[in-house]
Amino acid sequence: MLLHTIKEVREQVKQWKKEGLTVGLVPTMGALHEGHLSLIQKAVSQCDKVVVSIFVNPIQFCPGEDLDKYPRTLEADTKLCQDAGVSVVFAPTPAEMYGEREMRTNDFLTYVIPPFFHVHKLCGKSRVGHFDGVCTVVNKLFNIVQADRAYFGEKDAQQLSIIRKMVEDLNIPIEIVPCPIIREESGLALSSRNKYLSAEDKVHALALYQILNNIKLCYKKGVTDVQALKETAIFILNEHHDLEYLEFLDDKDLEEVTEANDNTRVFIACKVGGVRLIDNMLLG
Amino acid sequence: MLLHTIKEVREQVKQWKKEGLTVGLVPTMGALHEGHLSLIQKAVSQCDKVVVSIFVNPIQFCPGEDLDKYPRTLEADTKLCQDAGVSVVFAPTPAEMYGEREMRTNDFLTYVIPPFFHVHKLCGKSRVGHFDGVCTVVNKLFNIVQADRAYFGEKDAQQLSIIRKMVEDLNIPIEIVPCPIIREESGLALSSRNKYLSAEDKVHALALYQILNNIKLCYKKGVTDVQALKETAIFILNEHHDLEYLEFLDDKDLEEVTEANDNTRVFIACKVGGVRLIDNMLLG
Repeated sequence: MLLHTIKEVREQVKQWKKEGLTVGLVPTMGALHEGHLSLIQKAVSQCDKVVVSIFVNPIQFCPGEDLDKYPRTLEADTKLCQDAGVSVVFAPTPAEMYGEREMRTNDFLTYVIPPFFHVHKLCGKSRVGHFDGVCTVVNKLFNIVQADRAYFGEKDAQQLSIIRKMVEDLNIPIEIVPCPIIREESGLALSSRNKYLSAEDKVHALALYQILNNIKLCYKKGVTDVQALKETAIFILNEHHDLEYLEFLDDKDLEEVTEANDNTRVFIACKVGGVRLIDNMLLG
Repeated sequence: MLLHTIKEVREQVKQWKKEGLTVGLVPTMGALHEGHLSLIQKAVSQCDKVVVSIFVNPIQFCPGEDLDKYPRTLEADTKLCQDAGVSVVFAPTPAEMYGEREMRTNDFLTYVIPPFFHVHKLCGKSRVGHFDGVCTVVNKLFNIVQADRAYFGEKDAQQLSIIRKMVEDLNIPIEIVPCPIIREESGLALSSRNKYLSAEDKVHALALYQILNNIKLCYKKGVTDVQALKETAIFILNEHHDLEYLEFLDDKDLEEVTEANDNTRVFIACKVGGVRLIDNMLLG
């Protein structure tokens, strides 16, 4: 069932709750791929009813980012959801989610702002305001759907960590279920932005996974010094790669580490052919 | 029943919801007076079960404000609630509401930040960060209690307006019930801070109500020019009054007006004997 208004979703969920059914939410921006599908399948297996939200959230795009050209494939997305056993696809318009004044300038909107400590590193450094937009829309979706569980991919590990922190800090009554990264056979992490990559770019894009794999291999062989582990990346990067960051952080609270351990997650962001790609891997 | 932990409150409310009972929430900072009592009585009359939260929220006090000397009268408050038919008094410690790191610096806490437009006027101008703290704790309380309705006094009209905006912007599933200002026979609006006033201060404090009353009278007689209405206050103020603001705003969205109408609310803040007092009145 494809619904476009908050009111309709609320009424549907209210009905389910009356019947004592559990509800899962998979928040997405559409352009669904196997990565999203794995979240949806997990949700369908754990909940009586599943809502997939499809909303390209304008307030999480920074100036100069790809809001307008972000892929929109609602028809195919809806079909994928239906086939996977999803009960409701919630695809609101920006006007349904935000008032007119609230969209024109951010002076008029209540924001949910994640902690400086969690935001001002990794993607948050270059994407100023991005996680404010993410937390605000996810908070709204949580309040609209009032699901028992929400599913997020580990692909966006900083986002996952920030959302868990938001849930904890604001005592939001929902369980966050993390889902592992899905990769192509080549190792490339699935992403809606992979559509922008040429065949040649795709080959160069493998560097991200290779770097992470290589680091994990070295760690397993006993190297724990983060500087030494970082340097292993140099041999994989070349002129096709515009490295933004390669960071080693504690998986739970995103604190920087200098000695790697099993709870260390390695984060990488790199532009390939003008497309910004991210990936990450837990060392333990 | 006096509860101190989030877990206990959640379990109690869950039980009520299972039984199909409606729940009302009255968020307070304690030091309960007849004003709070009127909120509680309204809640008791409209809901099957009522939770009164008593929490002097550290993050809504600005540096130099009266956090430490803010009156704390839990025993008397609990008795007042019991007598009024309240089911649960929820009195958490700061540590129960915030983590240790989150209290030390605000770099580690997820905040709910109300719109600049609604905040940067009236009390928000002098109390920087105050409404961030209010919205964050109220959001937490809403998530903890998951009440059907929450009760707020019109005494803090800017706060009420900001909370309504937060509920609308974040799609929070709760009904906000406004409650009229309760006054002493003299006209002085009830406030926990009135305890700081000497007998003489209390006489001077009447100016706030007199000014508002006078303005309303003039408006009813046909004066709508805000500048002219403001000037009527001059004759009431004297050296015992330190006026902070006297503003005419639209009641719903706090937009400034120059011509008064029935939807105009007049807001006043004034220090008397070093105690900061606020009051307000709708002209219509």
